[in-house]
This record gives sequence, structure tokens and C-alpha cells, in this order.
Amino acid sequence: MIDPPPREVHYGTASQPALPGDGFVLGADIGGTNLRVALADSSGRILACQRASIAGVRDPLQVVARMRELASALLSEFSVAPAALRAIGAGAPGVTDAEHGIVIATSYLMGWTDVPLRAHLEDAFGIPAAIDNDVNLAAFGESRAGIAQAADDFVFLAIGTGIGAGIVLNRQIHHGSTWRAGEIGYLLVPGVSEEPVGHGDPGPFEAQVGGEGIRRQWLGRWSPACTSLPRDLTATEIFDHARAGDALASEVLRDTARMLSYGIYNLALVLNCPIFVLGGSVGLHPVLGDEIRRRLRQRGDRALPLIVQSALGDQAQLTGAVHLAIDVAATALG
Amino acid sequence: MIDPPPREVHYGTASQPALPGDGFVLGADIGGTNLRVALADSSGRILACQRASIAGVRDPLQVVARMRELASALLSEFSVAPAALRAIGAGAPGVTDAEHGIVIATSYLMGWTDVPLRAHLEDAFGIPAAIDNDVNLAAFGESRAGIAQAADDFVFLAIGTGIGAGIVLNRQIHHGSTWRAGEIGYLLVPGVSEEPVGHGDPGPFEAQVGGEGIRRQWLGRWSPACTSLPRDLTATEIFDHARAGDALASEVLRDTARMLSYGIYNLALVLNCPIFVLGGSVGLHPVLGDEIRRRLRQRGDRALPLIVQSALGDQAQLTGAVHLAIDVAATALG
Repeated sequence: MIDPPPREVHYGTASQPALPGDGFVLGADIGGTNLRVALADSSGRILACQRASIAGVRDPLQVVARMRELASALLSEFSVAPAALRAIGAGAPGVTDAEHGIVIATSYLMGWTDVPLRAHLEDAFGIPAAIDNDVNLAAFGESRAGIAQAADDFVFLAIGTGIGAGIVLNRQIHHGSTWRAGEIGYLLVPGVSEEPVGHGDPGPFEAQVGGEGIRRQWLGRWSPACTSLPRDLTATEIFDHARAGDALASEVLRDTARMLSYGIYNLALVLNCPIFVLGGSVGLHPVLGDEIRRRLRQRGDRALPLIVQSALGDQAQLTGAVHLAIDVAATALG
Repeated sequence: MIDPPPREVHYGTASQPALPGDGFVLGADIGGTNLRVALADSSGRILACQRASIAGVRDPLQVVARMRELASALLSEFSVAPAALRAIGAGAPGVTDAEHGIVIATSYLMGWTDVPLRAHLEDAFGIPAAIDNDVNLAAFGESRAGIAQAADDFVFLAIGTGIGAGIVLNRQIHHGSTWRAGEIGYLLVPGVSEEPVGHGDPGPFEAQVGGEGIRRQWLGRWSPACTSLPRDLTATEIFDHARAGDALASEVLRDTARMLSYGIYNLALVLNCPIFVLGGSVGLHPVLGDEIRRRLRQRGDRALPLIVQSALGDQAQLTGAVHLAIDVAATALG
């Protein structure tokens, strides 16, 4: 905000150590088909965010190059000198070794395996970088700047096409022994298929209650005799129709909420976790939260967590990435 | 070992600060009907253990008085002066606030509620005390002196009459926000009843795969036409007969292991935990571990934890209590 707008953007370390309150960070969210980059100030406030398609891009270096383009545009827009950038945090849609900065595996991005993303980012941007799984970063975002700021322990449930959980215990992301904690798409609850599933296939839980699973539930019940609604609806459209009173859509909503409540109940029992934050395009639908709450109350108070909606919505991952960058910048400063 | 045997035992703080390697601790395991107290040296080695019935005893002070009697007998036996006792650790069979030393609730002991057990122990013994849930202490025992010494993260599954889990993450017991983590008797997996259960009733998971549940499975299938075995068998006897080749007993074993494998799989997914330790009278039966391993392998390698048997057997809780006491003594010394 102070420096004149640069004509050419050269990423590099700041020429002098940043002061508290000084400098900016970048947060990035690498999705299956879209990339988003946010510019934030040192308090984590996102000034703006840019988006680009990475559909069909497999090469991690190309993704990083696209990230640099978006970052350059943001720096220009806000007249921020590259030297004022302190760090970058990025979320990846797969199993991510946050300690070594490696994306171990993902079913998106045409199957990245053992990609040293942190090193690529540090090479490209010339600033400290950190990475984590995107759902974990969404949880971290809610913990730092969202609905869960007061919670020591909580679970963020990302319900989109599939389903995943980011687990925060004692204010830290619980990653697990091989960076796979919270892979609840494969959870076994009453009503799911007990058949083992192959590599790359959706898990039995998300096959029922992820966005695609909800669509499949609808398709399996739909007939022109049952409903006047069209056959081809998304999960959130189905929930909209449930809210408007359609009987078939309400049935799909009830069954989805029942099974989700089983999953939440199991996690609440195991972790004894008081708060669940619903996020993701499907998880943010208000009728879903209401129906899950009703179901959980029916089970009694043994494990009756508070069910709240993400405060950050589709900015949760980016916000987490920004706060990860702030932590990295603080660590780099000593 | 050094002091002459005392005639009368007066508990009191040591007259001078203990040196490393100096002194003794007590560990206690309060069960539903039995109380056990162990005397251990400062390395955690259990010298001996005494047992007494507390069937029908509800008053916590009476339980503590019984504990003192057992401790006195142990001190006499090993010629240990009361002044050489540094601390006592105790496990309780219910929800236990380890921070404040309170047994919040238990379905055993005729329903203790909000019992300040730590304070009672410190009053009675005159030494620092600490308490925790018994399954948590069993996990802690395996972590410090049992099969899981090398593991940062693992789950101890206590399968006796009911079923519970002690969860160790980053070498610390994960207690949860209201000291209820690991209450997996209520887990919802394919095949359990989906009906909500009342307070005090066994959970749907343990109702199938706890010791009593296994007996019920057997009773539900038994008929003189099916088997020549008696109707009245315990869970471990049923497993013995399964090992010997009885078809009906093998069916109960297979169904039990299948459902237990679902529960373990769920916990392994959520926590990304590499090791599960089977304990408790039923959990220690070797055919159960073998059958669970076989079931888990069938699900593939997404969550394929190592299944091992408790190394400490029925001494796991006591060993955990002893090591809790050692930690308390070390903290008291600064």
C-alpha cells in the first residue's frame, strides 16, 4: 500500500526484516479445476482474491506459474511491492505432508504423487511457503478467523462432491500418523454399503451423502409419477425443493441428514468434540444443518455437539492458507 | 526395601525430597466389583499387587479406606516405610476429570457422581494423587511400559463386558472436551441397532460385540439341533470353541470380528492411527485378533492399522496408574 506499483514483479525476500503489522502474505487454494489466490495483510484480512482455471493442467510447475500470474495481478491492483510479501500458504486437494511440504497423493489434478509443492512455491516466489490439505486449511481458517475461534477442539465437515473432515484438537490440526486423518468419506455407518471399495472410488459414506451421492439418491427414487420436478438436479437444488415442501426431495434430505448425523455422532463419540462446522457447497445449505440437529437430538445427549455453519463459506480454505502463511512468516522472523 | 518394617502405617509426605531412583509409588485400579492396589518402585516396576472386593460398596471414602488397607499390607510385605511413598495414581471405571481429580459419572459403583476422588486420596494417603479413567490408564500403561512404547499415536481397545477406547495422540491421552473421548460402546456401524438408547443402557456397538453382546449373539443362535455345546457360555469360552472348530461358535466369532473391524476401521480413518492394542478379557483372546486382522485386510490398505495384543494383560490399568503416580511425583518435585 506504501510502495509505488511495480511494472515488473520480481519475487524476492524482503530487503529488511518485516516489522509486526508490516508486510503482506499470499494464500492459495488449489482445487480440482480452479485455482484461487488471495492477497492479505499481516492481520489476515483478505484484500482481494483472483481465480483461474487449471482444468487439464497436471504439471505442478504450471500450477505454480499460474499462481504467480494471479499474485502479480493482485500486487499490481493493490500497489504492493513484491518485497513486501512475507510468505505464501497453499491448500492442496489431497493427502499432504505439511511437515515436509509434499502433496503425497490426490485423486484430483490428474493424480499428483509426491509433489514437493512447498519447494516449488519457495523457488517460484522466493519467500517462505507452507502447504496443507485444503479441508485442514478450511478448519484452520474457521479456527483463526471464523466461527470456531473460541473452540479448542472442533471438526470442520466439508461436504461438496465428496466429504472430508478437518480435525482441530487443542487448537492444532490433527494430521494423523500418515497425514490422512479425517478421511471420513470411507466411514462405515448403518445404511452404507459394506463392500470394500477400490482405490480412487468414492467411499461408501460419501457415495451416499456427498453431493454426488445425494444426486444418486435422487435419481434412484425419481420417477415422473412421484414428482413434477426434473430428473437432473444438483444436491443443493434438491435441498431447495425439500425446503419448498417437495415430498421426494424431503425424503432425500431426511435420509442424507440421518446418515450424516450417524457420522457426526461417531466422530463426536470418539473425539468428544463439542462443535462441528458444516462447510462446502452442500454442507452450507441451511435445511441440512437443521435436519442434522433434529436427528442428533433424537439420539439423546451422550454426544450432542453444536452444529454450526461455516462463517467463512467458500473463503474458508483461502483464509486458512492466509493464516498458515502468517504463521510461517512469524516463524521465519524468529 | 531399606527401612525396617513399620508396625503401624502412617501415611505422610516424605521428610526429605525424594532423589531420582528413590522412593515408591502406589497404583490403584477401581473396578465395578474389585479393587486392586500395586506397589511399584520409582522405575514403575510393580513389586506386588493386592486385591479386595468392593462389591456393594458405594461410599467413595470406604473404597479409599479399603485402598489404604491394601497399601499397608504391601508396605509391610516389602518393608517399605510410608515416608518412602511419593504418590498414588488411581483408575476409575467412568467419566473422569483428570485435571480436577473428579469422577464425574460411572455406571459402576452404584453410580458415583462428581466424586472428588483425588482429594479423598490425598487426604487419606497424605501424598500427591492423580486419577483418570481406567481405559485411559490402560492405554497409558501400554504407552509407557507395554506394547505401544514406540508409538506416538495408538488406540487401546478394552473389550470386556462392554467396550471402550483409550486414545493416545502425540504420546498424550486424548480426553476430549468433557472427558468422554473414546466412548465407542455407542458407535454406529453397519449391523447395529439404529434406535437411540437410554441412559445407563449399553451402547448399540457393545450390545453386539462386548462380552455380554457376544453371549447374546450365542444365545440368539443356540439350539440343541445346531450344536452339542452348552447354552450358557462366556464370550471367551465361545471363542475357545470357535478355535476348536465348532461351526456355530465360529459364526459368532466371525460376526463379532466383522463388526469390531468396522469400528476399528472408522477410528483408524478419523484419527489416522497406525496401531490398535486389543485388551480386556475378550480382547485378549488370540482368535479374535486374527479374525479382525483378516477382515481389515479385506477392506484394502486405506486404513490398515497394526492390530496387536496388550502386552500387560490385566495389569495394563495398574501399570498406567503406577506411571501416572510417577509423573505426579516428578511434578511435585518440580
